[in-house]
Amino acid sequence: MFEAKFEDGVQFKKIVEAIKELVKNVNLEANGTGISLQAMDTSHVALVALQLNEKGFKKYRCEKSLTMGLSIENLQKILKCSGNDDQITLRTQEEEPTTLSFTFESKNRISEFQLNLMSLDQEQLGVPDTDYSSVIKMPSSEFTKICRELGNINEAIGIETSKDGIKFYVKGDIGEGQVSVKSNDEEKREERVECDVDEPVNLSFAVRYFNLFNKASALSTQVILSMSQDQPLVIEYQIDNMGSLKLYLAPKINDDEQQ
Amino acid sequence: MFEAKFEDGVQFKKIVEAIKELVKNVNLEANGTGISLQAMDTSHVALVALQLNEKGFKKYRCEKSLTMGLSIENLQKILKCSGNDDQITLRTQEEEPTTLSFTFESKNRISEFQLNLMSLDQEQLGVPDTDYSSVIKMPSSEFTKICRELGNINEAIGIETSKDGIKFYVKGDIGEGQVSVKSNDEEKREERVECDVDEPVNLSFAVRYFNLFNKASALSTQVILSMSQDQPLVIEYQIDNMGSLKLYLAPKINDDEQQ
Amino acid sequence: MFEAKFEDGVQFKKIVEAIKELVKNVNLEANGTGISLQAMDTSHVALVALQLNEKGFKKYRCEKSLTMGLSIENLQKILKCSGNDDQITLRTQEEEPTTLSFTFESKNRISEFQLNLMSLDQEQLGVPDTDYSSVIKMPSSEFTKICRELGNINEAIGIETSKDGIKFYVKGDIGEGQVSVKSNDEEKREERVECDVDEPVNLSFAVRYFNLFNKASALSTQVILSMSQDQPLVIEYQIDNMGSLKLYLAPKINDDEQQ
Repeated sequence: MFEAKFEDGVQFKKIVEAIKELVKNVNLEANGTGISLQAMDTSHVALVALQLNEKGFKKYRCEKSLTMGLSIENLQKILKCSGNDDQITLRTQEEEPTTLSFTFESKNRISEFQLNLMSLDQEQLGVPDTDYSSVIKMPSSEFTKICRELGNINEAIGIETSKDGIKFYVKGDIGEGQVSVKSNDEEKREERVECDVDEPVNLSFAVRYFNLFNKASALSTQVILSMSQDQPLVIEYQIDNMGSLKLYLAPKINDDEQQ
Repeated sequence: MFEAKFEDGVQFKKIVEAIKELVKNVNLEANGTGISLQAMDTSHVALVALQLNEKGFKKYRCEKSLTMGLSIENLQKILKCSGNDDQITLRTQEEEPTTLSFTFESKNRISEFQLNLMSLDQEQLGVPDTDYSSVIKMPSSEFTKICRELGNINEAIGIETSKDGIKFYVKGDIGEGQVSVKSNDEEKREERVECDVDEPVNLSFAVRYFNLFNKASALSTQVILSMSQDQPLVIEYQIDNMGSLKLYLAPKINDDEQQ
Repeated sequence: MFEAKFEDGVQFKKIVEAIKELVKNVNLEANGTGISLQAMDTSHVALVALQLNEKGFKKYRCEKSLTMGLSIENLQKILKCSGNDDQITLRTQEEEPTTLSFTFESKNRISEFQLNLMSLDQEQLGVPDTDYSSVIKMPSSEFTKICRELGNINEAIGIETSKDGIKFYVKGDIGEGQVSVKSNDEEKREERVECDVDEPVNLSFAVRYFNLFNKASALSTQVILSMSQDQPLVIEYQIDNMGSLKLYLAPKINDDEQQ
């Protein structure tokens, strides 16, 4: 018996919305500690990782570890049948489930859906918990905007960190440019920019992945960028009291002359 | 001489908006009692029927019965030239009119348009006024939402009535689901769900037609679904003080095993 | 050294937005009196003219006349990287500049962009400053709406002026129509209609150009239409304290019988 009731159903909808452009079929893993998901994006370049701790749920019960293979597209079709204020419960009675049940509850309406599951051949990748030499916290809306704007000029975006701030830069056929975001300690968390930089980095990424992932900014007003030179960056959105959604993306080989 | 001035011009715009996806060329009939329209949808499956009583108009005069054949698409182009707060008057002087005049009036602006009419060969179908064994009144926004949501899962939607409420269900390749709306007597009419069920029905419909018709929900906060087993359902939107817009749709042959 | 800082950066964005559908590559001319631009639209029918006086800028310096050839599309990509509240500064150090610099400043963010310039072979056309026999000032939103609405009915729009107002009319396959806007002296400038008519005109235009230009209505709540019989009309949007953006468009040969 597996049962997980979200305190705030719309969070689950936002999570699925955030990853739907990146991944197609995924294994949702449930065990006594919570629900997790890990999947390479369809082009096998970026890794999406979700962790939801059982403590963050309104109700959580998982007697035996379960792997539930599902299509994100179909999951989304089911979730579209829920309202933003609905309570959402996932449930299955089977030991090797072939369907996952969804209950959506609002004042005058109860909906029950069964999503067909599938068997997916996916390796769980071990993602080492490393220390990063630059950790930047900034408003998620700001990060989204910068990625979208600079993506108009070139497909590769450079990121350079320093103790004072973070600089995003591009160089394209039409010209070049850079956006500097200065470290600050605004009172409102959603405007704060915190730069914890042991060692500055200078890295280049395919902005496309950032833009595909940017809907995750609905999950949190803050985004955390963790970087070390020549290592994959982590874009992390924390989900209130529940866990986090992360995107891992390897840097492009930095070769300004050729780009 | 025919003249009809709407108390609230935007009502007429909403009516045309509501039927524009279903019908193409229609005969508008005017006589001493008001204006009516009856037309099969382009695939000859659903029937649209509009009735506007002369008493609901700000001004109404029709000395002789008139049939005005018009293209809904062209009518809409003309109506787009009116503002939502405009007073709208239809008018024609001719006995066998070849054009229909529209006057749109607002504070600083008067517009006059002539729409070319055409001769259409359309039979008036007699729709018998029968008693229905299940009549459900529910919020039109709720009905629209349920149809749109379930339509993502399958093209056929099942409807089952009982004294306690109405249940919508689907079964598709990706899974299955059902939405139950419980009878209630909320104070606000727009949230109320009333189920007048002499005999329960269980019917299946092509949700496509519901979705094409759903813009009619702008006409009324309430929709009325009238059903008898194996008979066409009627979806009815009442138009304040004026009449109603109805969609008649035959059920699909109910064969769960094969769908 | 050329430097021009906008008091209100979003004005510049609106100007570019207004002309982007009409012109492709243009020469921006800067000299001691300000910045100007003059370009035929891509089909060589309409002429766009912009004049920004140096007095309207927050800071302005231009030691030597400059011609800067640029792609409106690329300029727009750069401007998309600025926020609506940003201060915008244009700058170049070169005598024959190959790039134009943009600085966008907001509270926590400074952006620097270089747009590559190009050499364009464009004649400056002399536009004679004539007197017009009909000058109509009306709300820009109203003008935009009328053009868009009537454009649904026919591609040619007629304009007829009188001391009492201005009449727009169309005649198409589906019917015909006219919108009359009456002269008035409303207190609010944005609702006022002023008709300064020495001699009435009756002209016909391709509404397509009006619609392409209509984004300019974001620049001013008022539009000024200046017309003389059989002469190009001028659609003018004044830009607060800075200058104006004008569209010149020749009338169609007025031949009602054939249209």
